[in-house]
Amino acid sequence: MTLRLAASGLEGEAGSIPGRGAVMFDAVLRGLGQVMFQNNSYAGLLFLAGVAASAWVLAVAALLGACIATWTAIALGAERALIRAGMYGFNGALVAIALLTFLEPSALTWACVVLASVCATLLMAALQEAIAQWKLPALTAPFVLVALLFFLAAARFGRLVTTGQLPTAALPANAVVEGVVTAATVGEGVLRGIGQVFFQANLLSGALFVLGLLVASRRACVMALAGTLAGALVAWGMGAAEPAIRAGMFGFNSALTMIALGSVFLPSGWRASAYALLGAVFAPFVAAACTAAFASVGMPAMTLPFVLTTWLFLLASRGFARLRPGAGA
Amino acid sequence: MTLRLAASGLEGEAGSIPGRGAVMFDAVLRGLGQVMFQNNSYAGLLFLAGVAASAWVLAVAALLGACIATWTAIALGAERALIRAGMYGFNGALVAIALLTFLEPSALTWACVVLASVCATLLMAALQEAIAQWKLPALTAPFVLVALLFFLAAARFGRLVTTGQLPTAALPANAVVEGVVTAATVGEGVLRGIGQVFFQANLLSGALFVLGLLVASRRACVMALAGTLAGALVAWGMGAAEPAIRAGMFGFNSALTMIALGSVFLPSGWRASAYALLGAVFAPFVAAACTAAFASVGMPAMTLPFVLTTWLFLLASRGFARLRPGAGA
Amino acid sequence: MTLRLAASGLEGEAGSIPGRGAVMFDAVLRGLGQVMFQNNSYAGLLFLAGVAASAWVLAVAALLGACIATWTAIALGAERALIRAGMYGFNGALVAIALLTFLEPSALTWACVVLASVCATLLMAALQEAIAQWKLPALTAPFVLVALLFFLAAARFGRLVTTGQLPTAALPANAVVEGVVTAATVGEGVLRGIGQVFFQANLLSGALFVLGLLVASRRACVMALAGTLAGALVAWGMGAAEPAIRAGMFGFNSALTMIALGSVFLPSGWRASAYALLGAVFAPFVAAACTAAFASVGMPAMTLPFVLTTWLFLLASRGFARLRPGAGA
Repeated sequence: MTLRLAASGLEGEAGSIPGRGAVMFDAVLRGLGQVMFQNNSYAGLLFLAGVAASAWVLAVAALLGACIATWTAIALGAERALIRAGMYGFNGALVAIALLTFLEPSALTWACVVLASVCATLLMAALQEAIAQWKLPALTAPFVLVALLFFLAAARFGRLVTTGQLPTAALPANAVVEGVVTAATVGEGVLRGIGQVFFQANLLSGALFVLGLLVASRRACVMALAGTLAGALVAWGMGAAEPAIRAGMFGFNSALTMIALGSVFLPSGWRASAYALLGAVFAPFVAAACTAAFASVGMPAMTLPFVLTTWLFLLASRGFARLRPGAGA
Repeated sequence: MTLRLAASGLEGEAGSIPGRGAVMFDAVLRGLGQVMFQNNSYAGLLFLAGVAASAWVLAVAALLGACIATWTAIALGAERALIRAGMYGFNGALVAIALLTFLEPSALTWACVVLASVCATLLMAALQEAIAQWKLPALTAPFVLVALLFFLAAARFGRLVTTGQLPTAALPANAVVEGVVTAATVGEGVLRGIGQVFFQANLLSGALFVLGLLVASRRACVMALAGTLAGALVAWGMGAAEPAIRAGMFGFNSALTMIALGSVFLPSGWRASAYALLGAVFAPFVAAACTAAFASVGMPAMTLPFVLTTWLFLLASRGFARLRPGAGA
Repeated sequence: MTLRLAASGLEGEAGSIPGRGAVMFDAVLRGLGQVMFQNNSYAGLLFLAGVAASAWVLAVAALLGACIATWTAIALGAERALIRAGMYGFNGALVAIALLTFLEPSALTWACVVLASVCATLLMAALQEAIAQWKLPALTAPFVLVALLFFLAAARFGRLVTTGQLPTAALPANAVVEGVVTAATVGEGVLRGIGQVFFQANLLSGALFVLGLLVASRRACVMALAGTLAGALVAWGMGAAEPAIRAGMFGFNSALTMIALGSVFLPSGWRASAYALLGAVFAPFVAAACTAAFASVGMPAMTLPFVLTTWLFLLASRGFARLRPGAGA
């Protein structure tokens, strides 16, 4: 049960008995796929290509992070089925990309990537243990927590230098409507929004990620595109800044929320799809609130809004008879 | 068991079989009553009158919020007994009042009131699920979380304009004793403190709320008055600002805490009453700490101090043999 | 089970039947010992001497805090075995020292020490109840939460005056490497780091605390020294400020983490020791992150990093077969 919830499907892999290295490599690729809930090594490979299309060094980092996180899980004796499904890899991959995006590259930064990937596996195990009773998946919470930890620590550690990408700490102030949103804003926002799941606003990266989703699951692909579109439209309606909408900043949390609720964790049917869409509409509010709440510490919210929204909607669904399996479509 | 804890008493309602609309209307009024733990439609009506006495538009909003939140619970198939007791209405009502108090009224703000009321019901269901194992009630936590979400989001959404009521984000600094506290300060503070539960510092509103409590439960009324008085006195002793004490800002959390601990969730007896009083004394410290902690994001603490204090005292009571039922008065 | 986890060993105390006052006094001394997990009254006495060596008034406060917290637990009917093991005393002792370190002494501050010690016992009971299902110990979390509460409240209560020891609220900025770290920095940092567990940077205090540990458990003493050393070395490598390293600010959380993981809560063996060392390496990152996160509210992190790190490592260990009892050394 926990397994089913933690891993988004563990089927497959029958037939030939591969060697140890091949198993590990397969688990790492699936780990990259699991960033968008796809237990599929081809999807993982395409996601990796998408990151490389934007910056090859980040692809190296993602691979390294996923390897170390997976290896840590093996070394400490975590559950085999979870490891093979890539469940211990995806947080490591994201942590590695995040650290190299927000910290200046140096030997120490790479050492931190190694330590952070180890910690991502610890946090994954700890979170699964902590939220097992609510039958909630850990999602990308381990990644967000480890990344925040290292970015915050940089304020006390002189040899960890942050890049200009990290927001400067500032007291939050009221927004004014900024820029004019056109169809192009929303169109770009949708593709870049998918890319932002891996911190890549690049259009080609976004296209490769969409392709990866398509290879693994048509439903997940539709959900992701509908999610980013919903996120961009809500942000536009509420008067968010045009450059942020164009860069997909209000799309990626909605995309992940909609994949999770609409194709992984809820029984399918129109009710669940409508509920997932409500989640995708809600996520931009959570995203706006998280970035504002983090303003005074100068931290990015990353995929925290997705994690919070998905946990909220999953927990709430337990109390609603019409969203339980067998409630009829 | 969960039911008993969640709803503060579900007795009554036997006899005639009312129509669907009447049931919904009754549930909405009880929802207004549940803001101060009263499963009583007359209390709800008097609370609504108290809000209207201060600003009729807020009374309309409260009614709308309670209706939408209750309707959402019905549409999604939440537990009938909880809906009828008004348990899905009170957070919606408070969210609606809060949004219209802290956001400039506009079509978009009213649309947000609708979305926020829907979300209040989701959060209610999610929280009940999350804290069921500790047998803790959700209290007004869903309201506080949804309201904070929308106020924080306003810092990124240019078309959500906040009113001057919302605190400006500022780094917290040490307080100095401000103004001279007299008997009038404390006297007004007590009545306005009851009013602040619904964000109304108005004296007439406070009086109508007290009347509503009296109609529903004499014990709850005494606890509420003793609670605000304790809160005001502690704030005075610790050197809080006179205008804040006069406006009841240090009273409403103590009032709610004392109603909850002294008349709803603990077995009655002098020990429980003394424990409830300790809670009312503790609540102003939590209130002061929360407002200071929120200073740098410019957020109001609303009833969060009441929620935290009541959860703490309820959880702790499980470990203390002398506070368990049958421990003797 | 909860008991074993909550108290770090309850053995001993057979033989003569001591009077009520003597039992209480013994519980209070053990409570002082429990600050570093030692259920040993001699260790408690040496820890008290270490505090007195730095400032006798703080030793009086520690004794008062431990007495009131223990007495509150007795009065409310908490579990006898826990009280006798000093489990209800150590948070009160730490709260009292913290309040007198960060607040100007006055009659009101001493009254707050009394109220805060009572609250420390409530929080202890509440936390034990809340985290019982994860079989996690409450550690010093009650102390940290109560102390933060009173320091934050000082920003709204004019008669609570903070000392210069409390950090001023400021937006976090990136650190630069400050000062030159020498062997003396690290050496002093180790001893002062042990002292910082009780807020005492004094070298003699540190030495007395080490002696107390040695009296109670040689293994705990080795773990504490290895922990502070690891903390200081990591902080040096990451470029933390030299004065902070010298004062032991990056050592005490690592020391406590390593005592907890390496000598109290995990089955002994080289794997557990290596895991504890990883915790001690991780703790300075958490410490740096917590102080940065608290910068905008001007709060000290105290032992929160130790609590978070230890909870993380304990929770994670449940998912790892190689760290479970009987996994072989």
